[in-house]
Amino acid sequence: MKIVCYKDNILKAINSVVKGVASKTTMPILEGILIQTNDDEIKLTTYDLEIGIEYVIKCDVKEQGSTVVNAIMFSEIIRKLPDTEINISVNNNNLLEIECEGALYKLATMNPDEFPELPKIEVENSIEIEQNALKNMIRKTIFAVSSEESRPIFTGCLFEIENNKLSVVAVDGFRLALRSMYLNKQSNNFSAVIPGRTLNEVNKIISDSFEPIKIGVSKNQALFEMENCKIVTRILDGEFLNYKNVIPSNWETRIRVNKNSIQNCFERISLISSSAVEKEKKYPVKVNVDIGKVVISCTNQTGDAKEELYVSTEGKNLEAGFNPKYFLDSFKAIDDEEVYIEFGSSISPCLVKSVENNDYTYMILPIRLKED
Amino acid sequence: MKIVCYKDNILKAINSVVKGVASKTTMPILEGILIQTNDDEIKLTTYDLEIGIEYVIKCDVKEQGSTVVNAIMFSEIIRKLPDTEINISVNNNNLLEIECEGALYKLATMNPDEFPELPKIEVENSIEIEQNALKNMIRKTIFAVSSEESRPIFTGCLFEIENNKLSVVAVDGFRLALRSMYLNKQSNNFSAVIPGRTLNEVNKIISDSFEPIKIGVSKNQALFEMENCKIVTRILDGEFLNYKNVIPSNWETRIRVNKNSIQNCFERISLISSSAVEKEKKYPVKVNVDIGKVVISCTNQTGDAKEELYVSTEGKNLEAGFNPKYFLDSFKAIDDEEVYIEFGSSISPCLVKSVENNDYTYMILPIRLKED
Repeated sequence: MKIVCYKDNILKAINSVVKGVASKTTMPILEGILIQTNDDEIKLTTYDLEIGIEYVIKCDVKEQGSTVVNAIMFSEIIRKLPDTEINISVNNNNLLEIECEGALYKLATMNPDEFPELPKIEVENSIEIEQNALKNMIRKTIFAVSSEESRPIFTGCLFEIENNKLSVVAVDGFRLALRSMYLNKQSNNFSAVIPGRTLNEVNKIISDSFEPIKIGVSKNQALFEMENCKIVTRILDGEFLNYKNVIPSNWETRIRVNKNSIQNCFERISLISSSAVEKEKKYPVKVNVDIGKVVISCTNQTGDAKEELYVSTEGKNLEAGFNPKYFLDSFKAIDDEEVYIEFGSSISPCLVKSVENNDYTYMILPIRLKED
Repeated sequence: MKIVCYKDNILKAINSVVKGVASKTTMPILEGILIQTNDDEIKLTTYDLEIGIEYVIKCDVKEQGSTVVNAIMFSEIIRKLPDTEINISVNNNNLLEIECEGALYKLATMNPDEFPELPKIEVENSIEIEQNALKNMIRKTIFAVSSEESRPIFTGCLFEIENNKLSVVAVDGFRLALRSMYLNKQSNNFSAVIPGRTLNEVNKIISDSFEPIKIGVSKNQALFEMENCKIVTRILDGEFLNYKNVIPSNWETRIRVNKNSIQNCFERISLISSSAVEKEKKYPVKVNVDIGKVVISCTNQTGDAKEELYVSTEGKNLEAGFNPKYFLDSFKAIDDEEVYIEFGSSISPCLVKSVENNDYTYMILPIRLKED
């Protein structure tokens, strides 16, 4: 194998595939990048048996061939080379030689035949959206994915296509995030639960651009396909929450408030609520809605905190307890200036929505307040 | 105690003193900030029994008094309040009340009489320099301070004033950094070894400005004095290295090289040299100087690396082994474009100097190369 390529080009490819490299593994081959030539292209592949990433670039192939090299070492060396042409080849001793101006590096290689093959996917259903739209959908939901391995289905995000509308849903038993958008092209109805870890990696690889990305689904696998790059992942098996049934459609109490103002209140008060020695869940903050104002308060052994904010209110007065972290997560996900917060009773879920956009719904379950 | 102050003002004071707060202590009072009013000023003090920091600001004192409050909690709350006037007072239950717009926080306080008194310093000798000059001197030497507690004197920097010249020296047994500057004002000769930890904190507190800072020394203590802020520290006891005797004054081999070019070579090669499973000390990089070029190379089980750089050389050819990290530290400390690297024999120390400035000298001891 012998190729000549520009640093920029190959570094972009390496940066994408390196995210699929296994970090803790007893199989050294999974810590490697498979490099394969194919006419005037090379394909870089990584696969940790859960996520597989392929990236193809054009380059000057002097001699066809393939090899596997440790991903971290290879990427670090390429990253630090000058911005110019790099010669990469495998020598007679089976070492990968990287040559660039006065620098010559030789790295041990592994047998490309031992690199596990990526699963072949027979795409049954697919949609195409813009990469920045997918980025936005992931950002607004992924933080609500469960980290509890006991119910694996909730460690992923539901991608549901229904009547040409894509909804992405994450839920962890305490809150739920739902972002939806209409698709430009006619599509079949289908759904799949994609692991949160995969979406995190996809999110790092896709760009904040209008470039398209195709999401295809087979029985057990999903495929994210961009111009030069393919990401293969398993999909999660099991019954996802019937989310439409749990989101309340009416409210008893509603406030409309500047997002930054109430975010600041919750940030300050969580200094007190989360500093308590015991678990924070035991010290919810109390939210009181009265005509024209909301009071958020909290008392524990660290101290005493009260935040009063004048807001526009509708409906009944209310008192309920919440984990402030769950509110803060939603405020970070909402880009608009004003939010509605809708309450039922003190024991029913509360919704946070943007005033300007109705494509995002965030639901929080209350915590029962201790009777003092 | 009751004061009214602007957030900006008190936050600046808190940010400075909070660096003196004990992090791991069994005495909760040392995790506190002592707040004391004095006419129309308040003084904030922290002291971890090694470094003491005082900061004085003007504010509207409604009621004289003093208290101690947990530093982290107090600083976090103030930091997150809006940019406006803050009311701070101690209520009848001995809680510190912080009031600002709709926010009201009450924090537990501690008894100010139990706060340890900072040592009184009888300054015997002192100098005054600009804060940015001190910052520069600390930055260029502190990384060479020893972290080995077995020889405590080398965990500090020597400050030596001799014939109106200030020299700051750090040494750790493998390399030495020396930065010197002439003082504007006549000064006595004296010297003191200031703990590296103190200098790190001083460095964070002083600004990158021409504002003056006075460094005063008594028998056991040193005092850094700025307009609103004083830092007290113990000085280290013992005999520092007679550094003038160990810095070679002649060279046998000298190269002159663009700093960034050689820095890049050492950065890349240290990817290989420091990746070896065994301790990096056992895998020095080999430096070869021949007429018109320098070759840096390294071989271990990870791979093989060679960097060739065309440079201007003087004197004999040379082969010697070094830890590349020590070179990299010096390149980061030197702001100029070109450096001299001066070698003696393969077993004598090597010097790195700026070509443009002679106020900085950095010395590295070689590592004996293994005979293959």
